Amino acid sequence: MPAEARRDDDAGHTAALAQLRERFRQVRPASAAICAPLAIEDHVLQSMPDVSPPKWHLAHVTWFFETFLLLPYLPGYRCVDARYDHLFNSYYVTHSQPFPRAERGSLSRPTVAEVLNYRQQVNLAMEQLLDHPPQDHLPQILQRLELGLQHEQQHQELLLMDIQYNFSLNPLQPAYRQDLATAQTTQPPAPLRWLEHPGGLLEFGHSDEAFAFDCERPRHRVFLEPFRLANRPVSNADYLSFILDGGYNRAELWLADGWAYARQAGWQAPLYWRHDDDRGWLQFTLGGLQPLEAGAPVCHLSFYEADAYARWSEARLPTEAEWEVAAQGLPITGNFLEQDRLRPMASPLKAGPSQMFGDVWEWTASAFRPYPGFRPLDGSLGEYNGKFMCGQMVLRGGCCVTPRSHMRASYRNFFYPHMRWAFSGMRLARDAQE
Amino acid sequence: MPAEARRDDDAGHTAALAQLRERFRQVRPASAAICAPLAIEDHVLQSMPDVSPPKWHLAHVTWFFETFLLLPYLPGYRCVDARYDHLFNSYYVTHSQPFPRAERGSLSRPTVAEVLNYRQQVNLAMEQLLDHPPQDHLPQILQRLELGLQHEQQHQELLLMDIQYNFSLNPLQPAYRQDLATAQTTQPPAPLRWLEHPGGLLEFGHSDEAFAFDCERPRHRVFLEPFRLANRPVSNADYLSFILDGGYNRAELWLADGWAYARQAGWQAPLYWRHDDDRGWLQFTLGGLQPLEAGAPVCHLSFYEADAYARWSEARLPTEAEWEVAAQGLPITGNFLEQDRLRPMASPLKAGPSQMFGDVWEWTASAFRPYPGFRPLDGSLGEYNGKFMCGQMVLRGGCCVTPRSHMRASYRNFFYPHMRWAFSGMRLARDAQE
Amino acid sequence: MPAEARRDDDAGHTAALAQLRERFRQVRPASAAICAPLAIEDHVLQSMPDVSPPKWHLAHVTWFFETFLLLPYLPGYRCVDARYDHLFNSYYVTHSQPFPRAERGSLSRPTVAEVLNYRQQVNLAMEQLLDHPPQDHLPQILQRLELGLQHEQQHQELLLMDIQYNFSLNPLQPAYRQDLATAQTTQPPAPLRWLEHPGGLLEFGHSDEAFAFDCERPRHRVFLEPFRLANRPVSNADYLSFILDGGYNRAELWLADGWAYARQAGWQAPLYWRHDDDRGWLQFTLGGLQPLEAGAPVCHLSFYEADAYARWSEARLPTEAEWEVAAQGLPITGNFLEQDRLRPMASPLKAGPSQMFGDVWEWTASAFRPYPGFRPLDGSLGEYNGKFMCGQMVLRGGCCVTPRSHMRASYRNFFYPHMRWAFSGMRLARDAQE
Amino acid sequence: MPAEARRDDDAGHTAALAQLRERFRQVRPASAAICAPLAIEDHVLQSMPDVSPPKWHLAHVTWFFETFLLLPYLPGYRCVDARYDHLFNSYYVTHSQPFPRAERGSLSRPTVAEVLNYRQQVNLAMEQLLDHPPQDHLPQILQRLELGLQHEQQHQELLLMDIQYNFSLNPLQPAYRQDLATAQTTQPPAPLRWLEHPGGLLEFGHSDEAFAFDCERPRHRVFLEPFRLANRPVSNADYLSFILDGGYNRAELWLADGWAYARQAGWQAPLYWRHDDDRGWLQFTLGGLQPLEAGAPVCHLSFYEADAYARWSEARLPTEAEWEVAAQGLPITGNFLEQDRLRPMASPLKAGPSQMFGDVWEWTASAFRPYPGFRPLDGSLGEYNGKFMCGQMVLRGGCCVTPRSHMRASYRNFFYPHMRWAFSGMRLARDAQE
Repeated sequence: MPAEARRDDDAGHTAALAQLRERFRQVRPASAAICAPLAIEDHVLQSMPDVSPPKWHLAHVTWFFETFLLLPYLPGYRCVDARYDHLFNSYYVTHSQPFPRAERGSLSRPTVAEVLNYRQQVNLAMEQLLDHPPQDHLPQILQRLELGLQHEQQHQELLLMDIQYNFSLNPLQPAYRQDLATAQTTQPPAPLRWLEHPGGLLEFGHSDEAFAFDCERPRHRVFLEPFRLANRPVSNADYLSFILDGGYNRAELWLADGWAYARQAGWQAPLYWRHDDDRGWLQFTLGGLQPLEAGAPVCHLSFYEADAYARWSEARLPTEAEWEVAAQGLPITGNFLEQDRLRPMASPLKAGPSQMFGDVWEWTASAFRPYPGFRPLDGSLGEYNGKFMCGQMVLRGGCCVTPRSHMRASYRNFFYPHMRWAFSGMRLARDAQE
Repeated sequence: MPAEARRDDDAGHTAALAQLRERFRQVRPASAAICAPLAIEDHVLQSMPDVSPPKWHLAHVTWFFETFLLLPYLPGYRCVDARYDHLFNSYYVTHSQPFPRAERGSLSRPTVAEVLNYRQQVNLAMEQLLDHPPQDHLPQILQRLELGLQHEQQHQELLLMDIQYNFSLNPLQPAYRQDLATAQTTQPPAPLRWLEHPGGLLEFGHSDEAFAFDCERPRHRVFLEPFRLANRPVSNADYLSFILDGGYNRAELWLADGWAYARQAGWQAPLYWRHDDDRGWLQFTLGGLQPLEAGAPVCHLSFYEADAYARWSEARLPTEAEWEVAAQGLPITGNFLEQDRLRPMASPLKAGPSQMFGDVWEWTASAFRPYPGFRPLDGSLGEYNGKFMCGQMVLRGGCCVTPRSHMRASYRNFFYPHMRWAFSGMRLARDAQE
Repeated sequence: MPAEARRDDDAGHTAALAQLRERFRQVRPASAAICAPLAIEDHVLQSMPDVSPPKWHLAHVTWFFETFLLLPYLPGYRCVDARYDHLFNSYYVTHSQPFPRAERGSLSRPTVAEVLNYRQQVNLAMEQLLDHPPQDHLPQILQRLELGLQHEQQHQELLLMDIQYNFSLNPLQPAYRQDLATAQTTQPPAPLRWLEHPGGLLEFGHSDEAFAFDCERPRHRVFLEPFRLANRPVSNADYLSFILDGGYNRAELWLADGWAYARQAGWQAPLYWRHDDDRGWLQFTLGGLQPLEAGAPVCHLSFYEADAYARWSEARLPTEAEWEVAAQGLPITGNFLEQDRLRPMASPLKAGPSQMFGDVWEWTASAFRPYPGFRPLDGSLGEYNGKFMCGQMVLRGGCCVTPRSHMRASYRNFFYPHMRWAFSGMRLARDAQE
Repeated sequence: MPAEARRDDDAGHTAALAQLRERFRQVRPASAAICAPLAIEDHVLQSMPDVSPPKWHLAHVTWFFETFLLLPYLPGYRCVDARYDHLFNSYYVTHSQPFPRAERGSLSRPTVAEVLNYRQQVNLAMEQLLDHPPQDHLPQILQRLELGLQHEQQHQELLLMDIQYNFSLNPLQPAYRQDLATAQTTQPPAPLRWLEHPGGLLEFGHSDEAFAFDCERPRHRVFLEPFRLANRPVSNADYLSFILDGGYNRAELWLADGWAYARQAGWQAPLYWRHDDDRGWLQFTLGGLQPLEAGAPVCHLSFYEADAYARWSEARLPTEAEWEVAAQGLPITGNFLEQDRLRPMASPLKAGPSQMFGDVWEWTASAFRPYPGFRPLDGSLGEYNGKFMCGQMVLRGGCCVTPRSHMRASYRNFFYPHMRWAFSGMRLARDAQE
C-alpha cells in the first residue's frame, strides 16, 4: 500500500475509532438501563430454555468484548474471572465449552452486583484499549468493536423479550414498567391496500461499507416475478377474524408441522393473548395486562400461525427478497426501542408501505439459508450466524424493542417456525394480479 | 369448446386412458412383487415412527385408488371394508381422521392375506371403472389415475427403504434378497472434476403437459451466478477421508442443529456403516452385510452430514435450481429399481455429469418451499405436498430403488435434515472460480 | 449320606422325574396351543414396552430350558442358534446381555416357523436329557425342570394378557377367540359380607417341599390385628358406582402418584372399558367387545384405582399376610385357564370367602419386598424374583388365564402400581369392628 | 366432660399454649436465619423439580399458618395477598389448586423482601391469635400450631438440602458458609460390630400424647425374628471399598430398577462425590468442596445404592421396625442442625448403637406404607402424609441438618428410591447368626 493510501486509511480509522468509542459509551449503559426496573430476583429467571436470565445477558455481552477484543489485543490483560469463559460463552464451541444453555437459570452466582462489577472492569479495560489500540490490528479491532456493539444491541432486544416471557408465567402478572402508556384506541385498522411491485432482475443483500452481519452479504442478483405487498402489517383486528372463523381448528389452513405443533401446544390465539369473560381480549405486555388494541399489528405469532393466516386470507407471506426490495430506500424510522412504547402500536398510514421498520418483525416465506457467495467471518466469530442456517425462517424489519441504530433494510433475523416470544408479526403478499 | 376440439380431446383421452391402463397393470403388481421375498412376519414391522409396515404400504396405496377414484367415480361402488378408511389414510386430515402414524406397527390385522385380497378387489373395481369411465369426469380420472400410480411408485421406494431399515435392527442381519450381486471392486473412485456452468437468467420447474407433482410447478425464472458442479457424487472413499480426518468430532464443520443431533445420536459414520476389526468397513444392504465399495456413491447420509462434508471439502451443496439446470436434457438413465441392484454402484464416468439420475438422491442446499406461483391440487389431494413445505430439504435425481418411470429432472424429493434411511447421498458444488 | 437314605432319595428322584416328564409333555404344548388361534401376523406385535410379541414368548421359554438345563447338563449339546441367547434372554444380565426389551417388536426373524422348530428341537433334546440325566446333578435338574415349567406357565398367562392388549389397540377389534361364551347375565352381584378374622401371631409363606418361587419363602411368623375380609371381590357393578360418584375426578380419594398418573393418562374407567351411547358399558375381552357383566369381578385395575376405590368404600386393601392366612387351606379351585372362559365371571357365593383363587388377581396393600430370611436362588436364576423387589405391589390368587397347577395360596405376583393389563382386580378388607 | 376435668384440660391447654408460643418464637426466625448467608439471587433457584427456591420455602411455611390457623380461627383475618394461596400451596389439592411444583423457579415475584414481609405480617397475626385464642377451638389450634412448627422444621432441613443441591451445579462451587469447620481427620472408621437383638412380639409406632405425625401412629404389635444391627453407620471408607470393588458396574448387586437408573444416570459414586486427580476424593458440602472424611458416615446415597452396598456386604438393610425397636429409649442426641456442622461427622463409638440419631438419615428396607389402623388427619391436612404412601422407602433417625427438637424414635422420613439429595446414608443389618 502506498504511503498516501495508508495515511488516508489511518485517518479513516482514527475517525471511525472516535465514532465507535462514542457509540460504545452509549450502547453499553443501555443494557444496564434496561435492567434498572428489575428486582434482583428478576435477573435470575430462565423460564424456558430459549430464554436467558437477564444477568446472564449482561455478563455474556461483556464476555464478548473480553474474549474477542481484550484478550487478543490489550497487552497484559487478565480475565476478571477465568471461570466466566465457561459460564458466559453462549455457543462458540470452537472457542471453549459453553455452559449448557438450558441450565443458565440454575446459576445464582455470580450475583447481579458481581456481574455489574464485571461490566465495569471490562469497560475500563476497553477504554484502555481504545486509548492505545495496537495499530497493526486496528482494522480488526474496529470491526470487532462494531460487532460487539451490534451484538449487545441484539441482546438488548432479547432482554426485553425474555423479561416479558418470564413475567408472563407469573400469576401475579408483574409489569416490567408501570409508566408505559396504556392502549387507548379501539379504532379498527385502516383498510388494507395492495402495493404493486414490477419484479424483474434485482439486487438485494447488504452492499456498502457500513456494518452488516456476514449473513446479509454479499449483495446479489435475484429475479422476482411481479408481486403485491400489503401496505400495512396484519392487525389484531384482522387476526381476530381468523380466530373467530375457526382458524386454529381447521387443519386445511396449516402446514403439517404447524398443525401438529399447535394441537400439541393447545394454541388458540397468539402468545400473550388472554380472553377474559368480562374484559374481552387482553394482551400481556411489558406494561402488564392490557386491552387488545384493534389497530395495532398482531404480535407474538409463530411462523406456523402467520403462514396459516396468510392461507386463510388467500394470500401468502413475502419472500425476504420481495420484502427487501420493497424496503430499499425507505427511511429507517418507526416504533423502535427509543420510542419507549415497548409494544406494537397502531399507526397512521403513509403513501407507500407503512410500518416496514419497527413495531413487529415480519415473518417472511424464506428459510434462513446462505446467500450465494456467503462467507462467514474468520475464526470463532464465524459461528455467529452461519451455523444456524438450517430449520429457521427469516424475519425482517425490526420491532418496538429493537434499537433503531441496529436496523437496516438488509437485516435478517431468524427464528424456528414454532417460536413466538419474539415481537413477531406479519405482512401479506400476493402474486401480481393475472 | 367447439365440437372438433372436443373430439380431439376425446381421442387424446382415449389414448391416454389406454396407456395409463397398461401402466396400471404394470405398476400395481410391482408392489406385491417387492414384498414377495418377505416372510409374513416381515410385513408387520414398524421399527421406528418414520417407517411403515410393508403391509400398510400395500394397503395404503390401494386405499388411495379406492378413495380418490372408485368412491367418487365408480357408481355404486362400496368399500371393501369401511374401517380401512381410518386405518389406511396416511395424512389427509381434510378427508378423514388418519390412524396415528407411529402406531401402524401395532396392527396385526388386517392380515397380509386380507390386504392382498383388498388389493385384488380394488384392482377389479378399477378395471370396471376404466372399462366405462364416466365421460364428464374423464380428465380428473386420468389425472388421478396417473397420480395414484406415481403415488404407488413412491411407496415402492419407501417399501425398500423401510424393509432395509427394519432388517438392519435385527441382530440376525437378515438379507432381503440373497441373490443380489455382492460388491466386488475396491477400486478407488475416479478423480473428481468440476464442470463449469455460466449461470444467468434461467428457467426451472416442470414445464410440459406430462405428469409432475404440483410442487414441481410452475416453471419459473431464476437468476444463477456462475457455478461449478462435481462430475460425480461423493464416493464412499471420499467420505471415509472425512471420517478419518475427525469429521464427526469437529464442531466447526457442522451446522448447530446437526452437531447437536449427531452428538446426541452418537453418529460416527453414515447409517448402515459398521466397522469390523477383521473385515474393515461394512455396509448393511438389502443383500445383507456387504464390504463397503470404495467407488460407490456414499449413501444414507443426513443433510447435516452432507453439509458438514461439503464444508470440510471447502465446497458446498448445489441449490436445487443449480442441480436442475445442470440436469435438464440429460437422459433419465442410471441405476434405478429396474436394474435390480438395490444399492448404489460405482460407475464409469461420462463426459458431463455422471450419475445425476439413479444410485443416490442428492441433498441440495435448498429448503423445500413453494415455487413462486405454486398452486396445490384441489381438495384433499392438495395435502399431497404443500403442507410439508417447512423444515425439510430438497433432494434430487432418484436412487437405486426408485422406479425409472417415476423420475424427472424437475422431481423434488424432500426429507427432514436429520433423516438417513432414504438412499440419500450428495454431490459437491462451488461458486465459479474468481 | 448313608446308603439307605441315598437309595430313598434316588427312588424319590426317579418318581419325581417321571412325574415332571409327564408334566413337561403337558405344559410345553399348551403354549403353542394358546397361539394356535393367532394369525402369523399376530405373533410379531409389541404394542407397548411391557408387552412381548407372542413368538418371543414361545422362544424365550424355550431358551430357558436350553440355557439352564441343556447347556449345563446334556453332554455335547449345541445351541440351535447361538444368536438366540442374546435375542431370547429376557433379563438375566449376569448370564449374557439381553436384547433391549422395548425393541422385541422390531424383530420379524426368527419367523414363527423357525421359533416352532426351535421349540421342537429343544423338546427333543430335553427328552434325551430326561432319558439319561447325569445322576450327580439330578436334584438340580429336577429343580430347574420344575422351575422351567412354572416359568412357562407364567408366560402362558402373559401370552393371553399381551394378545388381549395388542388386539385392544386395533380399531378392527379382533377377537382372539370367536367361540368363547358371551356374557349373559346382568344380574347384580350378591351383597358383600364381611368375614371376621381374629388375627394373632400367625405364619405365612410357603412351607413344604412342593415347588414355590424363592420369594414365597421362608415361611415366617407375623402378628396380625383382627381384621375383616370381604366375602367376594369387588364387582363391575360396585365399581361403576365409584365411577358414577365421580371417583376418577376426586383427588382426595387418590394417592398422589396415582392421581398424577390417572390425570396424565386420562383414566376415567378401568382398562378395556368403553362406553357406547347405544349399548352402554362394554368391555374388550379375548372374545372381542362384550357387554359389561354387572356381577363379574372388576378387572384390569391399576393398584392406584384399587386403592382409590377402597378409600371411597371406607375400607382398605388387605395386606398380603391377611390375604394369605385367609386363603390357607382353601381348595385351589376357581375360574382358571383350564375353564377356558378367559374372562372373570360372576359366581355363586360360598360360605367362606368366594373366588379367592382364579377370576382376578387381587391387589394387596403390600409392597413386594423380601420376607425375613429370604434367599434368592444361586447363580443367574437368582435374578428370577429378587431383583424386582422394589416399587411393585403384591397381587394374590391367580386369575382366569392362570393355569390351575401354577397356583398356590403363597403365590406372590407383582406389578408396578400403574399397570393395568394383567387380569387385576381387588377385594376389600377392614380393621375389625371396634 | 365434668367441670373438673375441663378445668384440668384448660390448665393443660394454657400451659401447652405458653410452651408452643415460646417455640413459635424460636422456630419461625430459624428459617430466616438459615437464609441469612444467601444472596438475594440464591433465593430464586430451582435447579431440579424436587428442589424448591428458598424464598418459596419461606413463604410456603408461612402460608401454612395463614391457611390452617389464621383463616379459620382469627376472626376478621384477611389474607396478606389472596393470590399467595395458589402460589404457596404445595400439594393440598382438596384445599385449592397448587401452582405447578416444577415451575416454582420461574417466579421472581414476590421478591425476597415481600416474602419476608409476608412472614412478618403472619407472625404478627399469629401473636394476635395466640393472645386471644377462641376457646372452643383451642385443642385444634394447639394441634395445628404444633403441626405448623414441625412442618416449618421439615422445611428448614429441606432448605439446606436444596441450597446445597443448587450450589453444587454451579461451576463456581459457591460455599453456603465459609465458616464451617473443614474435615480434618483421615482416620479410618472404627471396626463395625454387630449388636444382637432377640426379636419377639414387640411394639412400635408412636405411643404417647406428644406430637407425632399421623403416619407414625398407631403404635402396634409386630413380630420380629432375632436380628443383628451394625453398631455404626456405613462410613465413607467402607463405601469406597465398594466402589473400588466395581460395585457400580456389577449388575448382580443391584435391584433391576436401581441398575437401570444408575446406568442411565451414569452414577459411579454418591451424589456430591468428585474425584480429582491431584486431591483424590472430594465431597461438595454446604461449606464448599472438602476432602472426603474416611470415618464419617457415607451420605447422599439413593436407596438403590444403599441396597446394592448391603448386598455386596452380604448383609441387608434393617426394616423400619427393627430400626425403631433398637432405637427406642436411646437419647435423642447427635450431630443435628443445632451442632451447626451441617455435614455428617466421624464420631467416637458408644457401647450400644452409635449415631442412630443425627448425622445421616438411614435407609430402611421398608416401603412407606400405612401402619395397621392408620388414620390420616381430617380435612386437607389429611393429605400431609397419607397420600404419599406408595413407591417411597422409609428412612430413620434424622441427620446433621435436622433440628433436634424435630426428631423422635418413631419418626418416618420417606423418599423415592432414586433420590439422593437428602442427607441419606445407611446402617447394615443381618439375620441372627444361625
